[in-house]
Amino acid sequence: MAPLPAPEPARQLETTASLDVRKLRFEVNRMQLPMGVEGTFGMVKHPGASLAVPVLADGRVVALRQYRFAVATRLLEFPAGTLDPGETPLSTMQRELQEEAGYSATRWDELGALLPCPGYSDEVIHLFLARDLTELSERPPGDDDEDLEVVLMTPAALDQLIASGDEYLDAKSVTAWFRAKQVLGI
Amino acid sequence: MAPLPAPEPARQLETTASLDVRKLRFEVNRMQLPMGVEGTFGMVKHPGASLAVPVLADGRVVALRQYRFAVATRLLEFPAGTLDPGETPLSTMQRELQEEAGYSATRWDELGALLPCPGYSDEVIHLFLARDLTELSERPPGDDDEDLEVVLMTPAALDQLIASGDEYLDAKSVTAWFRAKQVLGI
Repeated sequence: MAPLPAPEPARQLETTASLDVRKLRFEVNRMQLPMGVEGTFGMVKHPGASLAVPVLADGRVVALRQYRFAVATRLLEFPAGTLDPGETPLSTMQRELQEEAGYSATRWDELGALLPCPGYSDEVIHLFLARDLTELSERPPGDDDEDLEVVLMTPAALDQLIASGDEYLDAKSVTAWFRAKQVLGI
Repeated sequence: MAPLPAPEPARQLETTASLDVRKLRFEVNRMQLPMGVEGTFGMVKHPGASLAVPVLADGRVVALRQYRFAVATRLLEFPAGTLDPGETPLSTMQRELQEEAGYSATRWDELGALLPCPGYSDEVIHLFLARDLTELSERPPGDDDEDLEVVLMTPAALDQLIASGDEYLDAKSVTAWFRAKQVLGI
Protein backbone atom coordinates (compact mmCIF):
# COMPACT_ATOMS: atom_id res chain seq x y z
CA MET A 1 0.00 0.00 0.00
CA ALA A 2 0.99 3.62 -0.44
CA PRO A 3 2.15 5.43 2.72
CA LEU A 4 -0.73 6.79 4.75
CA PRO A 5 -1.49 10.49 4.58
CA ALA A 6 -0.25 12.80 7.35
CA PRO A 7 -2.76 14.75 9.47
CA GLU A 8 -3.89 17.95 7.76
CA PRO A 9 -5.89 20.17 10.10
CA ALA A 10 -8.15 22.71 8.43
CA ARG A 11 -7.43 26.30 9.46
CA GLN A 12 -10.09 27.37 11.95
CA LEU A 13 -10.83 31.04 11.33
CA GLU A 14 -13.75 31.66 13.70
CA THR A 15 -16.33 29.79 15.77
CA THR A 16 -19.61 31.56 15.01
CA ALA A 17 -21.93 29.48 17.21
CA SER A 18 -21.84 26.52 19.57
CA LEU A 19 -24.11 24.40 21.77
CA ASP A 20 -23.02 22.18 24.64
CA VAL A 21 -25.19 19.28 25.77
CA ARG A 22 -24.02 16.43 28.00
CA LYS A 23 -20.71 15.13 26.58
CA LEU A 24 -21.26 16.70 23.13
CA ARG A 25 -20.39 20.11 21.73
CA PHE A 26 -21.86 21.31 18.45
CA GLU A 27 -19.80 23.98 16.68
CA VAL A 28 -20.27 26.13 13.62
CA ASN A 29 -16.87 27.18 12.34
CA ARG A 30 -15.60 29.36 9.55
CA MET A 31 -12.70 27.32 8.17
CA GLN A 32 -10.13 27.27 5.42
CA LEU A 33 -9.67 23.74 4.08
CA PRO A 34 -6.20 22.50 3.00
CA MET A 35 -7.27 22.80 -0.67
CA GLY A 36 -7.77 26.55 -0.07
CA VAL A 37 -11.58 26.75 -0.03
CA GLU A 38 -13.11 28.84 2.78
CA GLY A 39 -16.54 28.10 4.15
CA THR A 40 -18.78 27.64 7.17
CA PHE A 41 -19.09 24.07 8.43
CA GLY A 42 -20.89 22.40 11.33
CA MET A 43 -19.43 19.59 13.38
CA VAL A 44 -19.79 17.60 16.59
CA LYS A 45 -16.91 17.60 19.07
CA HIS A 46 -16.94 14.32 20.95
CA PRO A 47 -14.66 12.99 23.74
CA GLY A 48 -14.26 9.61 21.98
CA ALA A 49 -15.63 6.18 22.77
CA SER A 50 -14.77 2.52 23.05
CA LEU A 51 -16.49 -0.64 21.80
CA ALA A 52 -15.79 -4.30 22.51
CA VAL A 53 -16.70 -7.50 20.68
CA PRO A 54 -16.99 -9.89 23.65
CA VAL A 55 -16.56 -13.56 22.67
CA LEU A 56 -17.47 -16.40 25.05
CA ALA A 57 -15.48 -19.65 25.30
CA ASP A 58 -18.16 -21.41 23.20
CA GLY A 59 -17.74 -18.85 20.40
CA ARG A 60 -20.96 -16.92 20.99
CA VAL A 61 -20.76 -13.13 21.08
CA VAL A 62 -22.31 -10.89 23.71
CA ALA A 63 -24.45 -8.20 22.06
CA LEU A 64 -27.06 -5.73 23.26
CA ARG A 65 -30.48 -4.74 22.02
CA GLN A 66 -30.43 -1.06 22.96
CA TYR A 67 -32.96 1.79 22.63
CA ARG A 68 -31.69 4.82 20.66
CA PHE A 69 -33.89 7.91 20.79
CA ALA A 70 -32.19 9.60 17.81
CA VAL A 71 -33.43 6.85 15.49
CA ALA A 72 -36.53 5.92 17.53
CA THR A 73 -35.81 2.21 17.68
CA ARG A 74 -33.87 -0.59 19.37
CA LEU A 75 -30.64 -1.63 17.67
CA LEU A 76 -28.45 -4.68 17.94
CA GLU A 77 -25.05 -3.35 19.04
CA PHE A 78 -21.89 -4.44 20.79
CA PRO A 79 -21.23 -2.96 24.24
CA ALA A 80 -19.75 0.53 23.92
CA GLY A 81 -19.53 3.80 25.75
CA THR A 82 -18.17 7.33 25.81
CA LEU A 83 -14.87 8.11 27.51
CA ASP A 84 -15.23 9.80 30.90
CA PRO A 85 -12.54 12.33 31.96
CA GLY A 86 -9.33 10.57 32.99
CA GLU A 87 -10.23 7.27 31.37
CA THR A 88 -8.21 5.44 28.74
CA PRO A 89 -10.08 3.70 25.91
CA LEU A 90 -9.37 0.34 27.59
CA SER A 91 -10.51 1.43 31.05
CA THR A 92 -13.72 2.88 29.56
CA MET A 93 -14.40 -0.41 27.85
CA GLN A 94 -13.66 -2.50 30.94
CA ARG A 95 -16.19 -0.37 32.85
CA GLU A 96 -18.83 -0.42 30.10
CA LEU A 97 -18.56 -4.18 29.55
CA GLN A 98 -19.47 -4.66 33.20
CA GLU A 99 -22.21 -1.97 33.30
CA GLU A 100 -23.89 -2.76 29.98
CA ALA A 101 -23.34 -6.49 29.51
CA GLY A 102 -22.59 -7.77 33.01
CA TYR A 103 -19.27 -9.40 32.08
CA SER A 104 -15.61 -8.87 32.91
CA ALA A 105 -12.78 -10.01 30.65
CA THR A 106 -9.09 -10.74 31.16
CA ARG A 107 -7.93 -10.98 27.53
CA TRP A 108 -8.07 -7.79 25.48
CA ASP A 109 -6.87 -7.21 21.91
CA GLU A 110 -7.02 -3.93 20.01
CA LEU A 111 -8.95 -3.93 16.72
CA GLY A 112 -8.04 -0.42 15.58
CA ALA A 113 -9.87 2.90 15.58
CA LEU A 114 -13.11 3.65 13.78
CA LEU A 115 -14.61 6.94 12.60
CA PRO A 116 -18.42 6.73 12.70
CA CYS A 117 -19.26 10.10 11.09
CA PRO A 118 -16.12 11.67 9.59
CA GLY A 119 -18.23 14.14 7.61
CA TYR A 120 -19.43 16.01 10.69
CA SER A 121 -18.03 14.51 13.90
CA ASP A 122 -14.52 14.11 15.29
CA GLU A 123 -15.59 11.06 17.29
CA VAL A 124 -13.08 8.20 17.34
CA ILE A 125 -14.26 4.78 18.58
CA HIS A 126 -11.51 2.48 19.87
CA LEU A 127 -12.31 -1.14 19.06
CA PHE A 128 -11.41 -4.13 21.23
CA LEU A 129 -11.84 -7.89 21.19
CA ALA A 130 -12.66 -9.11 24.73
CA ARG A 131 -12.09 -12.75 25.64
CA ASP A 132 -11.77 -14.93 28.74
CA LEU A 133 -15.08 -13.54 29.98
CA THR A 134 -16.67 -14.01 33.40
CA GLU A 135 -20.35 -13.25 33.96
CA LEU A 136 -20.84 -11.02 36.99
CA SER A 137 -23.31 -12.09 39.65
CA GLU A 138 -24.68 -8.52 39.58
CA ARG A 139 -24.29 -5.70 37.03
CA PRO A 140 -22.85 -2.43 38.42
CA PRO A 141 -25.17 0.55 37.85
CA GLY A 142 -24.74 2.34 34.48
CA ASP A 143 -26.32 5.45 32.96
CA ASP A 144 -29.92 5.91 34.09
CA ASP A 145 -31.11 6.73 30.57
CA GLU A 146 -29.96 3.39 29.13
CA ASP A 147 -32.55 0.81 28.14
CA LEU A 148 -30.96 -2.42 26.93
CA GLU A 149 -31.03 -6.18 27.09
CA VAL A 150 -28.17 -8.65 26.65
CA VAL A 151 -28.37 -11.01 23.64
CA LEU A 152 -26.01 -13.99 23.12
CA MET A 153 -25.56 -15.00 19.47
CA THR A 154 -23.49 -17.44 17.46
CA PRO A 155 -21.26 -15.91 14.74
CA ALA A 156 -23.42 -17.60 12.09
CA ALA A 157 -26.60 -16.08 13.53
CA LEU A 158 -25.00 -12.63 13.62
CA ASP A 159 -23.80 -12.96 10.01
CA GLN A 160 -27.27 -14.07 8.98
CA LEU A 161 -28.90 -11.13 10.76
CA ILE A 162 -26.59 -8.68 8.99
CA ALA A 163 -27.30 -10.42 5.66
CA SER A 164 -31.08 -10.43 6.15
CA GLY A 165 -31.52 -6.74 5.47
CA ASP A 166 -34.39 -6.93 7.95
CA GLU A 167 -32.95 -4.42 10.36
CA TYR A 168 -30.81 -1.30 10.40
CA LEU A 169 -27.08 -1.93 10.45
CA ASP A 170 -25.29 -0.22 13.34
CA ALA A 171 -22.12 0.79 11.52
CA LYS A 172 -19.77 0.64 14.52
CA SER A 173 -20.95 -2.87 15.41
CA VAL A 174 -20.74 -4.28 11.88
CA THR A 175 -17.28 -2.71 11.40
CA ALA A 176 -16.05 -4.13 14.71
CA TRP A 177 -17.43 -7.55 13.78
CA PHE A 178 -15.61 -7.42 10.42
CA ARG A 179 -12.32 -6.73 12.27
CA ALA A 180 -13.05 -9.34 14.96
CA LYS A 181 -13.67 -12.00 12.29
CA GLN A 182 -10.34 -11.14 10.67
CA VAL A 183 -8.51 -11.56 13.99
CA LEU A 184 -10.44 -14.71 14.97
CA GLY A 185 -9.96 -16.22 11.50
CA ILE A 186 -13.66 -17.00 11.10
CA MET B 1 -34.47 -14.62 14.92
CA ALA B 2 -36.95 -12.90 17.17
CA PRO B 3 -39.28 -10.43 15.42
CA LEU B 4 -37.73 -7.01 15.04
CA PRO B 5 -38.80 -4.25 17.41
CA ALA B 6 -41.40 -1.69 16.31
CA PRO B 7 -40.46 2.01 16.09
CA GLU B 8 -40.68 3.73 19.47
CA PRO B 9 -40.36 7.50 19.15
CA ALA B 10 -39.32 9.33 22.30
CA ARG B 11 -41.79 12.03 23.42
CA GLN B 12 -40.36 15.40 22.43
CA LEU B 13 -41.33 17.91 25.13
CA GLU B 14 -39.45 21.03 24.03
CA THR B 15 -36.66 22.15 21.69
CA THR B 16 -34.49 24.43 23.83
CA ALA B 17 -31.86 25.36 21.23
CA SER B 18 -30.92 24.65 17.63
CA LEU B 19 -28.32 25.53 15.02
CA ASP B 20 -28.66 25.16 11.25
CA VAL B 21 -25.62 24.84 9.04
CA ARG B 22 -25.66 23.62 5.43
CA LYS B 23 -27.71 20.41 5.32
CA LEU B 24 -27.40 19.76 9.08
CA ARG B 25 -29.53 20.86 12.01
CA PHE B 26 -28.30 20.49 15.59
CA GLU B 27 -31.06 20.34 18.20
CA VAL B 28 -31.17 20.26 21.97
CA ASN B 29 -34.43 18.67 23.06
CA ARG B 30 -36.11 17.95 26.35
CA MET B 31 -37.46 14.44 25.86
CA GLN B 32 -39.24 11.63 27.64
CA LEU B 33 -37.77 8.27 26.65
CA PRO B 34 -40.03 5.20 26.26
CA MET B 35 -38.68 3.80 29.57
CA GLY B 36 -40.08 6.94 31.28
CA VAL B 37 -36.86 8.87 31.98
CA GLU B 38 -36.96 12.59 31.14
CA GLY B 39 -33.84 14.47 30.15
CA THR B 40 -32.16 16.92 27.79
CA PHE B 41 -30.44 15.37 24.81
CA GLY B 42 -28.54 16.72 21.80
CA MET B 43 -28.81 15.31 18.30
CA VAL B 44 -28.08 15.96 14.66
CA LYS B 45 -30.97 16.02 12.19
CA HIS B 46 -29.72 14.89 8.82
CA PRO B 47 -31.52 14.50 5.44
CA GLY B 48 -30.02 11.03 4.86
CA ALA B 49 -27.34 9.81 2.50
CA SER B 50 -26.42 7.07 0.05
CA LEU B 51 -23.25 5.05 -0.47
CA ALA B 52 -22.26 2.64 -3.24
CA VAL B 53 -19.69 -0.14 -3.44
CA PRO B 54 -18.79 0.07 -7.14
CA VAL B 55 -17.30 -3.18 -8.51
CA LEU B 56 -15.55 -3.31 -11.90
CA ALA B 57 -15.80 -6.29 -14.27
CA ASP B 58 -12.32 -7.44 -13.16
CA GLY B 59 -13.44 -7.51 -9.49
CA ARG B 60 -11.63 -4.36 -8.37
CA VAL B 61 -13.59 -1.84 -6.32
CA VAL B 62 -13.70 1.91 -6.92
CA ALA B 63 -12.83 3.78 -3.72
CA LEU B 64 -11.91 7.36 -2.87
CA ARG B 65 -9.21 8.92 -0.75
CA GLN B 66 -11.11 11.92 0.59
CA TYR B 67 -10.20 14.84 2.86
CA ARG B 68 -12.41 15.15 5.98
CA PHE B 69 -11.96 18.36 7.98
CA ALA B 70 -13.75 17.02 11.08
CA VAL B 71 -11.03 14.40 11.58
CA ALA B 72 -8.21 16.39 9.91
CA THR B 73 -7.13 13.63 7.56
CA ARG B 74 -7.78 11.81 4.29
CA LEU B 75 -9.82 8.62 4.55
CA LEU B 76 -10.35 5.69 2.25
CA GLU B 77 -14.10 5.63 1.57
CA PHE B 78 -16.61 4.41 -0.96
CA PRO B 79 -18.43 7.07 -3.01
CA ALA B 80 -21.29 8.56 -1.00
CA GLY B 81 -23.32 11.70 -0.64
CA THR B 82 -26.14 13.50 1.11
CA LEU B 83 -29.65 13.45 -0.35
CA ASP B 84 -30.68 16.68 -2.06
CA PRO B 85 -34.34 17.76 -1.91
CA GLY B 86 -36.49 15.66 -4.26
CA GLU B 87 -33.91 12.93 -4.68
CA THR B 88 -34.40 9.24 -3.93
CA PRO B 89 -31.52 7.32 -2.33
CA LEU B 90 -30.82 5.68 -5.70
CA SER B 91 -30.88 8.92 -7.70
CA THR B 92 -28.53 10.55 -5.16
CA MET B 93 -26.14 7.67 -5.55
CA GLN B 94 -26.29 7.66 -9.33
CA ARG B 95 -25.39 11.38 -9.28
CA GLU B 96 -22.64 11.00 -6.66
CA LEU B 97 -21.03 8.02 -8.41
CA GLN B 98 -20.58 10.21 -11.46
CA GLU B 99 -19.47 13.35 -9.59
CA GLU B 100 -17.12 11.72 -7.10
CA ALA B 101 -15.77 8.68 -8.92
CA GLY B 102 -16.39 9.45 -12.60
CA TYR B 103 -18.36 6.27 -13.30
CA SER B 104 -21.92 5.39 -14.25
CA ALA B 105 -23.50 2.01 -13.53
CA THR B 106 -26.46 0.09 -14.95
CA ARG B 107 -26.79 -2.70 -12.34
CA TRP B 108 -27.83 -1.64 -8.84
CA ASP B 109 -28.57 -3.84 -5.82
CA GLU B 110 -29.66 -2.64 -2.40
CA LEU B 111 -27.46 -3.60 0.56
CA GLY B 112 -29.71 -2.29 3.33
CA ALA B 113 -29.68 0.79 5.51
CA LEU B 114 -26.92 1.79 7.90
CA LEU B 115 -26.95 4.05 10.96
CA PRO B 116 -23.57 5.76 11.38
CA CYS B 117 -24.15 7.51 14.73
CA PRO B 118 -27.39 6.26 16.33
CA GLY B 119 -26.39 7.77 19.68
CA TYR B 120 -26.71 11.36 18.46
CA SER B 121 -27.74 11.51 14.78
CA ASP B 122 -30.83 10.39 12.89
CA GLU B 123 -28.79 9.95 9.69
CA VAL B 124 -29.64 6.88 7.62
CA ILE B 125 -27.22 5.82 4.87
CA HIS B 126 -28.73 3.72 2.09
CA LEU B 127 -26.21 1.18 0.78
CA PHE B 128 -25.94 -0.02 -2.81
CA LEU B 129 -23.82 -2.39 -4.85
CA ALA B 130 -23.10 -0.82 -8.26
CA ARG B 131 -22.03 -3.03 -11.16
CA ASP B 132 -21.78 -2.89 -14.97
CA LEU B 133 -19.74 0.31 -14.64
CA THR B 134 -18.69 2.70 -17.41
CA GLU B 135 -15.91 5.23 -16.85
CA LEU B 136 -17.01 8.70 -17.92
CA SER B 137 -14.78 10.65 -20.27
CA GLU B 138 -15.25 13.67 -17.97
CA ARG B 139 -16.52 13.95 -14.38
CA PRO B 140 -19.51 16.27 -13.88
CA PRO B 141 -18.79 19.03 -11.33
CA GLY B 142 -19.48 18.14 -7.68
CA ASP B 143 -19.32 20.09 -4.43
CA ASP B 144 -16.58 22.73 -4.53
CA ASP B 145 -15.37 21.83 -1.02
CA GLU B 146 -14.58 18.22 -1.93
CA ASP B 147 -10.96 17.13 -2.20
CA LEU B 148 -10.66 13.52 -3.31
CA GLU B 149 -8.85 11.08 -5.57
CA VAL B 150 -10.11 7.83 -7.07
CA VAL B 151 -8.36 4.60 -5.98
CA LEU B 152 -8.95 1.20 -7.62
CA MET B 153 -8.28 -1.77 -5.32
CA THR B 154 -8.64 -5.54 -5.41
CA PRO B 155 -10.87 -7.09 -2.72
CA ALA B 156 -7.77 -8.74 -1.18
CA ALA B 157 -5.94 -5.40 -0.98
CA LEU B 158 -8.96 -3.76 0.66
CA ASP B 159 -9.29 -6.60 3.19
CA GLN B 160 -5.57 -6.32 3.94
CA LEU B 161 -5.81 -2.56 4.42
CA ILE B 162 -8.68 -2.99 6.89
CA ALA B 163 -6.73 -5.74 8.69
CA SER B 164 -3.51 -3.71 8.88
CA GLY B 165 -4.73 -1.39 11.60
CA ASP B 166 -2.55 1.25 9.95
CA GLU B 167 -5.35 3.67 9.23
CA TYR B 168 -8.68 4.79 10.61
CA LEU B 169 -11.63 2.65 9.63
CA ASP B 170 -14.45 4.61 7.99
CA ALA B 171 -17.41 2.78 9.53
CA LYS B 172 -19.85 3.29 6.64
CA SER B 173 -17.32 1.98 4.12
CA VAL B 174 -16.29 -1.10 6.14
CA THR B 175 -19.95 -1.92 6.86
CA ALA B 176 -20.88 -1.57 3.19
CA TRP B 177 -17.93 -3.76 2.21
CA PHE B 178 -19.06 -6.44 4.70
CA ARG B 179 -22.50 -6.46 3.07
CA ALA B 180 -21.09 -6.36 -0.47
CA LYS B 181 -18.89 -9.38 0.29
CA GLN B 182 -21.94 -11.29 1.55
CA VAL B 183 -23.84 -10.53 -1.66
CA LEU B 184 -20.86 -11.20 -3.93
CA GLY B 185 -20.03 -14.42 -2.07
CA ILE B 186 -16.37 -13.45 -1.60
